[in-house]
Amino acid sequence: MVGLDSLKDVFEEQINDLRSAEQQLVEALPKLEEAASSDELKQAFGEHLTETRQHVERLDDVIASTGIEMTGETCEGMAGLIREGSETASEGGDPMAKDAALIAAAQRVEHYEIAGYGTVVALADHLGLDEAKDVLAQTLEEEGAADKLLTKIATGGMFRSGVNQAAAG
Amino acid sequence: MVGLDSLKDVFEEQINDLRSAEQQLVEALPKLEEAASSDELKQAFGEHLTETRQHVERLDDVIASTGIEMTGETCEGMAGLIREGSETASEGGDPMAKDAALIAAAQRVEHYEIAGYGTVVALADHLGLDEAKDVLAQTLEEEGAADKLLTKIATGGMFRSGVNQAAAG
Repeated sequence: MVGLDSLKDVFEEQINDLRSAEQQLVEALPKLEEAASSDELKQAFGEHLTETRQHVERLDDVIASTGIEMTGETCEGMAGLIREGSETASEGGDPMAKDAALIAAAQRVEHYEIAGYGTVVALADHLGLDEAKDVLAQTLEEEGAADKLLTKIATGGMFRSGVNQAAAG
Repeated sequence: MVGLDSLKDVFEEQINDLRSAEQQLVEALPKLEEAASSDELKQAFGEHLTETRQHVERLDDVIASTGIEMTGETCEGMAGLIREGSETASEGGDPMAKDAALIAAAQRVEHYEIAGYGTVVALADHLGLDEAKDVLAQTLEEEGAADKLLTKIATGGMFRSGVNQAAAG
């Protein structure tokens, strides 16, 4: 990227960034799934992996239909978030405390994507790329739902369970 | 951090992470302010710098009142996000397109913090740290407001202005 000459350039840069982010996440989610202790959390990571693969496909469709040039640049933001999540995954300690830390790391990832897709949906709207906008808005909705599910697992179940009362001790 | 033995440990790790993240942001925001072209965006970054300094102070209060040991570890997630923002700040091109890219980078930062503060508010609640919870919830609210203001600048003004119609061309 030598410069941003138009909002279309910004859109292209952002889509490239998200493409790299989602691909990194496809590789990271199995490690989070393996590191999780609770069945509910394992299942959530597993199901989000399936969704994330779809998000990559959707981005590839947008890239093809809008003629975006793929730069292959690594998304540094997601790389940092995944490093954090990997550190958490390799930490020892109480299984439920570790699950809480994994959820915290995963929610940072989801929020990265919520911000990123929020941007590209607004840009697609502005640029009149209606089909791309609809597809990206669908992913945005799924990232939001994944974030809410993680909150539900943390506050609705985990923090209230006997096991976690012990972990809080 | 050798292991997470309780939710209190997770809380401490998360507070340390946010302390590093906010401090990195205090150093980065003046660069974003300088790189921004629109007065509205410059002002938003400037005002958020003042808020961010308060967020650091609040975290120091929480650290003092709850007896958290400061690790001094760098928050890798925020480091990656700031690297992305810095790259954008140093890019050339159309001023309004660059402003849109700066907003996109800043919203990823805000969402990192929204996720992080959401976690520590839930943990403080669970751990019965009511005073810390209230202080952290106040920051969470301000990060949310900062994110909404950036959306408003992007979609309410910038994308609709004549200058940006040109940049979109």
